[in-house]
Amino acid sequence: MRYRSDVANTKQECEPDNLPFRDTPVTCDSGDWRQRDRPYTPLQVSVLSSLWLWISGRNRFARFTAMSFVTVAPDSDFSVQNLPYGVFTTPENPRPRIGVAIGDLILDLSAVKHFFDGPVLKNVQNVFDEPTLNAFMGLGRAAWSEARQMLQKILSKSEPLLRDNAELRAKALVPQSTASMHLPAAIGDYTDFYSSKNHAYNVGCMFRDPKTALNPNWTHLPVGYHGRSSSVVISGTPVHRPNGQLRPDETKPPVFGPCRLFDFELEMGFFTGPASTFGQPVTMDKAEDHIFGMVLLNDWSARDIQKWEYVPLGPFLAKNLGTSISPWVVTMDALKPFLTDNIPQDPTPLPYLQHSNKYNFDIKLDVSIMADGLTKPAVITRSNFKHMYWTMKQQLVHHTVTGCNLNPGDLMGSGTISGLTADSYGSMLELCWKGTKTVDLGNGITRKFLQDGDEVIFHGYCEGDGYRVGFGTCTGKVLPAHPIS
Amino acid sequence: MRYRSDVANTKQECEPDNLPFRDTPVTCDSGDWRQRDRPYTPLQVSVLSSLWLWISGRNRFARFTAMSFVTVAPDSDFSVQNLPYGVFTTPENPRPRIGVAIGDLILDLSAVKHFFDGPVLKNVQNVFDEPTLNAFMGLGRAAWSEARQMLQKILSKSEPLLRDNAELRAKALVPQSTASMHLPAAIGDYTDFYSSKNHAYNVGCMFRDPKTALNPNWTHLPVGYHGRSSSVVISGTPVHRPNGQLRPDETKPPVFGPCRLFDFELEMGFFTGPASTFGQPVTMDKAEDHIFGMVLLNDWSARDIQKWEYVPLGPFLAKNLGTSISPWVVTMDALKPFLTDNIPQDPTPLPYLQHSNKYNFDIKLDVSIMADGLTKPAVITRSNFKHMYWTMKQQLVHHTVTGCNLNPGDLMGSGTISGLTADSYGSMLELCWKGTKTVDLGNGITRKFLQDGDEVIFHGYCEGDGYRVGFGTCTGKVLPAHPIS
Repeated sequence: MRYRSDVANTKQECEPDNLPFRDTPVTCDSGDWRQRDRPYTPLQVSVLSSLWLWISGRNRFARFTAMSFVTVAPDSDFSVQNLPYGVFTTPENPRPRIGVAIGDLILDLSAVKHFFDGPVLKNVQNVFDEPTLNAFMGLGRAAWSEARQMLQKILSKSEPLLRDNAELRAKALVPQSTASMHLPAAIGDYTDFYSSKNHAYNVGCMFRDPKTALNPNWTHLPVGYHGRSSSVVISGTPVHRPNGQLRPDETKPPVFGPCRLFDFELEMGFFTGPASTFGQPVTMDKAEDHIFGMVLLNDWSARDIQKWEYVPLGPFLAKNLGTSISPWVVTMDALKPFLTDNIPQDPTPLPYLQHSNKYNFDIKLDVSIMADGLTKPAVITRSNFKHMYWTMKQQLVHHTVTGCNLNPGDLMGSGTISGLTADSYGSMLELCWKGTKTVDLGNGITRKFLQDGDEVIFHGYCEGDGYRVGFGTCTGKVLPAHPIS
Repeated sequence: MRYRSDVANTKQECEPDNLPFRDTPVTCDSGDWRQRDRPYTPLQVSVLSSLWLWISGRNRFARFTAMSFVTVAPDSDFSVQNLPYGVFTTPENPRPRIGVAIGDLILDLSAVKHFFDGPVLKNVQNVFDEPTLNAFMGLGRAAWSEARQMLQKILSKSEPLLRDNAELRAKALVPQSTASMHLPAAIGDYTDFYSSKNHAYNVGCMFRDPKTALNPNWTHLPVGYHGRSSSVVISGTPVHRPNGQLRPDETKPPVFGPCRLFDFELEMGFFTGPASTFGQPVTMDKAEDHIFGMVLLNDWSARDIQKWEYVPLGPFLAKNLGTSISPWVVTMDALKPFLTDNIPQDPTPLPYLQHSNKYNFDIKLDVSIMADGLTKPAVITRSNFKHMYWTMKQQLVHHTVTGCNLNPGDLMGSGTISGLTADSYGSMLELCWKGTKTVDLGNGITRKFLQDGDEVIFHGYCEGDGYRVGFGTCTGKVLPAHPIS
């Protein structure tokens, strides 16, 4: 049933009325491939694309359930139903290039770009030769769907194109173990929301009281703030404990020194697709056209720096020390089978924020810490993306309602994702309840906040029927603060 | 005397110990020109560069005071002492390229790049073929100084290289009146500070009271927040009055509609130079190496949207509707003659924020409004950059103290620059004192906040002895809000 509805959805999206690039301007960072050799008008492309997807979609159910000729373990995050995009290099080829994860391998799209011969992609195959995903993200949903269909085709067990071409396979399929991953996009702007009600409530209880835990605006709009994009780093990058101004004794002036309350925040982020125009809001009916896919996101946080600096203009240095993301961008098409009910919103949001379709996702999340004295990472919390109160569509529409423009590859963070119970909170601040409890890592080791040497490991996945659509991990190790001279 | 000390400073900066690119990694957005054909080690470049600048600097006083063969009116912002950088196109050549303003003309650097034959630039002349200044900004201070010296040479009345080459002059000198200006850099990140004490005090008085006008952290650190870089636009771009959530009646739920309290903020911004490394703070002794030059900046502000949204995470939609900057980046070398005393700081900042040299600048600023019913713009305020409490060096050091990394072309705004007196305030909020006064535009026309159709015009310049180092203007017209469907 899941696959059948997926086919229906795919067809529906590709109806001419819904095609995003009919009137959405597409911009991207590099090259002028957009102008080159596009022999069709946008309307012609729409019609051809619909026809092509309809024809190819007829056999989709059969192909979709077929196994890939690449071995994929049942608990692998990277099934043929997933096919997330990333950017990688190898020791033999240090040129950053776009790949798709499948099992333990990466399919190098620069080596197979000639297969993308559908009506949208055939004249822009060189987006798969770029060192980032920005250009591909900027093409929009028809291109993304077409690419996904072709990837499922060439990776399927029944398709000889790649399966039976040993020379091409040797070139195009790379073990993940030999690759280094890089940021999937040149991130123009990074925005961080605060959209888990449980988290906002917990923080409000700690710093105010349960009756006034949520600020008055919280249930009316997705609270957010602009973050620092330069310090978004790829999973695996170690992060120094920051130095900064702290005021542990409020009767005395602030002091300068290493953050004492260093924390992670369990978040997910989404990458934006086609650019929007400066001055023109993206309305709710177009919001999905601008959401490409999702990653895990660790919004490292210096709680004590934040406490002293954040009134009145919000978090600044407490957050700009680094933000880690997982390398594989899981597309919204891959996540569609895991749609789940939105959280009921009371009060009803203002009309510009309303949408009736489901846009919440059942994505299981967990956080582990690997610390000195442990033999394996200790899971300290299990949460789920479905705890989000505001949807990504609402976040995006709110962000642009003033006319703020989007570019392909902008990153938007969810905010800390906490569940209802104490074993599902998304930060040490909540898990240790502002330092009043300890978090047990086993082997007699406990934590309140993070210590130097701790490695924080996020994992996330959707559980299908015999397969997973997963995100891999987002990791980062805490290095000591720089000595103060 | 000014010029002599300028020469001394230039030499001092170029001592090997002070050369920024000895150990500072240089990154930029495009091309791999950094690796190409650099025949010298960094130490060799340092020594050669020092020698070259010392030799050429011996005649600098004579050359500097010489007139240019290009006519420059005494009240022109773009004297041969200025030479700001910008990016422009012309109807005949729509390729964005780098130019330098001189009088009413633009010197097209792509047409004269072969003249830049000093030790730092001769192998990287193609930075002047880029569509943005990022690569040149990323080269660092030795490159900037060398470029400035060569520009002053080829534009001087006594130098025949360009003066006597009619064919090259026709190609390389473009009337400003025929050019369109573009953003000078691809802005990776935009940060906005809040560093004028008068402004922060005024706002605090309006919303709290004079005794608690400044928040406790304000005198200890340069308060700032991350802004939105995608919506930084070039002077002349009209800006829509934003729609958003407002709560005019605090006893009722918020409403959605056009901002009613739309405002400008008179700011300046600086562009950063060479990249810094993720995780590595930029210390005070290196701060000037990362400051390329300055522009005028209008941080358009929706006061009523901000009031409702900004607790606890700071301004978001109230600011991301657009930020306008002037097109010509005036270099720190050009501003050096206008250094003035820093504002005394009490309490003494923590050691990481201390510097003893002057880094405040006497830059005259004014704001005019052109409105329906006026025959010419009405000047509504006159301020000066020298009212800044925190210096740009302190802002940059604070920003990076956590390890937050810089890229060439990041933009940092000063915050609203208000003087001490009511005729020097830098926003309508202060000029109309939260709506309790009117601002007189003449002809019987008054304002509290901005109305649709108002054009806001910033101008700024330094007054030298018979010449100016100016910024031109930063303009933007307020368009009506989009109708709400």
